[in-house]
Amino acid sequence: MTDVVVAGGGLIGLGVAWRAARRGLSVAVVDDAPGTGASAAAAGMLAPVTEAGYREEALLRLGLASLERWPAFAAELERDSGLPVGLRTAGTLVVGFDDDDMRELEALHDFQQQLGLSAERLLPRAVRRREPSLTPRVRGGLLVTGDHSVDGRAVHGALLAAAAAAGAELVRDRADGLLVEDGRATGLRLAGGGTVRAGSVVVALGAHSGRLAGGPPVPVRPVKGQILRMAGAAGLLDGTVRALVRGRHVYLVPYGGNGLIVGATTEDRGFDGTVTAGAVHDLLHDAIDVVPGVSELELAETMARWRPGTPDNAPLLGPASLPGLVLATGHHRNGVLLTPVTADAIADLLVSGSLPEVAAPFTVDRFGHADVRSAAPGGGEQCR
Amino acid sequence: MTDVVVAGGGLIGLGVAWRAARRGLSVAVVDDAPGTGASAAAAGMLAPVTEAGYREEALLRLGLASLERWPAFAAELERDSGLPVGLRTAGTLVVGFDDDDMRELEALHDFQQQLGLSAERLLPRAVRRREPSLTPRVRGGLLVTGDHSVDGRAVHGALLAAAAAAGAELVRDRADGLLVEDGRATGLRLAGGGTVRAGSVVVALGAHSGRLAGGPPVPVRPVKGQILRMAGAAGLLDGTVRALVRGRHVYLVPYGGNGLIVGATTEDRGFDGTVTAGAVHDLLHDAIDVVPGVSELELAETMARWRPGTPDNAPLLGPASLPGLVLATGHHRNGVLLTPVTADAIADLLVSGSLPEVAAPFTVDRFGHADVRSAAPGGGEQCR
Repeated sequence: MTDVVVAGGGLIGLGVAWRAARRGLSVAVVDDAPGTGASAAAAGMLAPVTEAGYREEALLRLGLASLERWPAFAAELERDSGLPVGLRTAGTLVVGFDDDDMRELEALHDFQQQLGLSAERLLPRAVRRREPSLTPRVRGGLLVTGDHSVDGRAVHGALLAAAAAAGAELVRDRADGLLVEDGRATGLRLAGGGTVRAGSVVVALGAHSGRLAGGPPVPVRPVKGQILRMAGAAGLLDGTVRALVRGRHVYLVPYGGNGLIVGATTEDRGFDGTVTAGAVHDLLHDAIDVVPGVSELELAETMARWRPGTPDNAPLLGPASLPGLVLATGHHRNGVLLTPVTADAIADLLVSGSLPEVAAPFTVDRFGHADVRSAAPGGGEQCR
Repeated sequence: MTDVVVAGGGLIGLGVAWRAARRGLSVAVVDDAPGTGASAAAAGMLAPVTEAGYREEALLRLGLASLERWPAFAAELERDSGLPVGLRTAGTLVVGFDDDDMRELEALHDFQQQLGLSAERLLPRAVRRREPSLTPRVRGGLLVTGDHSVDGRAVHGALLAAAAAAGAELVRDRADGLLVEDGRATGLRLAGGGTVRAGSVVVALGAHSGRLAGGPPVPVRPVKGQILRMAGAAGLLDGTVRALVRGRHVYLVPYGGNGLIVGATTEDRGFDGTVTAGAVHDLLHDAIDVVPGVSELELAETMARWRPGTPDNAPLLGPASLPGLVLATGHHRNGVLLTPVTADAIADLLVSGSLPEVAAPFTVDRFGHADVRSAAPGGGEQCR
C-alpha cells in the first residue's frame, strides 16, 4: 500500500506529489490525461498584487507567501526535472484607458499601499518607455515589479518529470470514486476497474473535484475561462500587461521565445467547453486595442477550460470531513501562483499530520455544514 | 501509358479527372495530400451574380454557364459517389449598413439589370423577414435567388469517390516537374522519385501551378485568404448573406447541419500561411455586426490558404504553349463555382482536341508572351 494517492495530475496534484515524494513518502498520481485541464489553459501569472481584490486579504497573504516561494520552487523544479519553467521577473504593468479605468487603477493603488505592497504610478510617457508596443492612447499605469509569470505548460512538464524522478508513480486512469472503509478514505476506484489503496487520498481534480463518488461534497463549481495563444511575439512585450479597456479586463502574458497569452473570460456556464466567436472577438479586440502589434501575430490556439471556483473563490486546503481525505483544490484564478504554497502545505500535512498556519484559513470547514453542499455561483463574480 | 495525368487533386483536378474518366479516358491524379489546399478553405459560394465585378463580363458569363451546370453536376456527383454535396438553393442576400454601402449595392443592382441578371431590391423589413437573425441596423438588401452554395469539403470528398469509381487512379505523391520529350509534355516527375507518363498533362495545382520544373511559366500568384468555420449555427441563416459593413466585405455561408463559414480576407502576401489575430478579429467583428447571434457560436476552425490569382483574375483554361500540356488553374475566388464548366471544358478538350467556346476566352495566350512571365499583383485587388 502506498502512503499517498493523489487524484489529479494537474499543476496542484503533481506539485503535491513531487513535494511529498521528495520528503520520503510513497506517492501515486491518478490521471488519464495529465495537464489537459485548467493547467493547459493557465496564463502563468504570479500576480497576487495586481490580482488583489478587496475583502480578500487572507487570500492575498496566501498569494504573497506563494510568490515568495516561487523563485526557489522554480530553481528546485528545474534542477530536479532538468527542464526550464520560464520564470519571468520583468514585472507587471497595469494600464487604463478612460476616466473610470484610471479611477479603478487609483483605487487599486490605494488598496495596495494600505497593505504595504509595492506598486508605482506611471505617467503615460513612462508606461510607453517601459513597454513601447503599448498604444499611445493609454492614460497611465501602475507598475508592480514583484508580480511575475511562468510558462504554465513548461511548469507542468517539469513537475511530471520531477515527480517521476522523486519516485512518484503516474497511474494513467481516471479516478472515479473514493474507497471508504470504517469511516475512512482508503484509496481510489479507477474508471478502468482497478483500485489504488493509500494511507491518505488527496483530491486535486480542479473543477472536477466534486466528481468522486462516495466522498463528502466538495464545494467547487466550474468557472469557464477562454484564452488565446499567439505566436510570433518575440520582442513585443517585456513583461505582463494587464489592462482595463473601458471597464473590461484583459491581460497579455509573454512566454517562451515568441509566445503571448491573451486572456481571459470568466463565465458561469457549467462544464460548457465551447470556444465562442464572441469571446475570441472580445479578447482579440481588447488585446489589439492595448497593443496594436498583436494584430500581426499568429493566432496559434484557442482554448476553453474550467477554473475550480468556491463560494468565496479561495482554495480548499487540508483535511476534509472524512478522515484520510485531503483537499487541494478550488484555486480558481490562482492555481499557478498558489502551486508552491499548496504543494508544501499539503506535503507538510501528509508528513506531520498538521497543516501549516499559512494554509489554516483555507480548510473546507470554514463554510460550515450548510454551505458545503453547494458551490453556487455569484460570489462577486464578474464577466472577465 | 495513361491517357491523362492531372497534377493536383483539389476540386478542379478531381473534377477534370472524374469527367475525363467518365468519357472513357484512362486518368491518373497526382497529389500527396488531396483536398488540403484552397479546396479545404473554400466557402462554397456559387455566386456569379453577387460576385459580378465591372469589366469582368466574360468571367461573369463563364460563371453563369457553370452555375447552370451545378444542379446536374451535383446530382451526377452524388449518384456516382453515393455522397451528399450539400447544394443549397436558398439564394443569396446582399446587405449594406451605411450610405456608401447602399450606394455600392445600388450600383451593383444597376449593373446586374444591365446584364439582364435577376436581383431584387429589398427594404430593411423584407430583409429581416427573410433572415430574422440579421441585425436591425441593416439599411437594405439585394436578393439574388439564383446564387447558391455547396459544401466545398463535401464536394471534394464526393469527387474523390466518383473519380475512383470512374476508374481514375490517385497517385499519392507530389508532382515536382514536367517530363518533356521532343518539345512535348509527356508526363510528370514525382517528388518520391518516380514518373507518370501520359498523352496529356493537366496542371491543376491552384496557387502552386507555377511550381512544375521544366514547364513554361504559368502566370499564377498566391492570393491569401483567411476564413473561419463556426459550429452550432443550425437555424441561424437560411441562405448565404453577403454584407458591406461600412465598406468592408464579409460573407456568411451556412453549410451542413450546423456549420457556418465566415470569410474572407484577400491578401497579397506570397505563400504566407499565417492565421493572424487581426484577420480573425476583423472577420468576427463584421460577422457579429451583421448577425449578432454569431457571437454565441463555437469558433471551430481558422484557416489560411492561397487562391490562384492571374493578371486579370480570370482562370487559365486549355492548351499551354507546350504541346501536350493543358492548364486548369487560376480560378482565384471562383474555384467551386467554376468546377463544373472547367471539368467539362477540359474533358472536351482531352477527348476531342478542341476547347468549347465558353472556355475559349480563357486560354493563357490572352496575355501574349510578355505578360505570361509575371503574375504581378495589383489587378484591381482590394483588401477583403
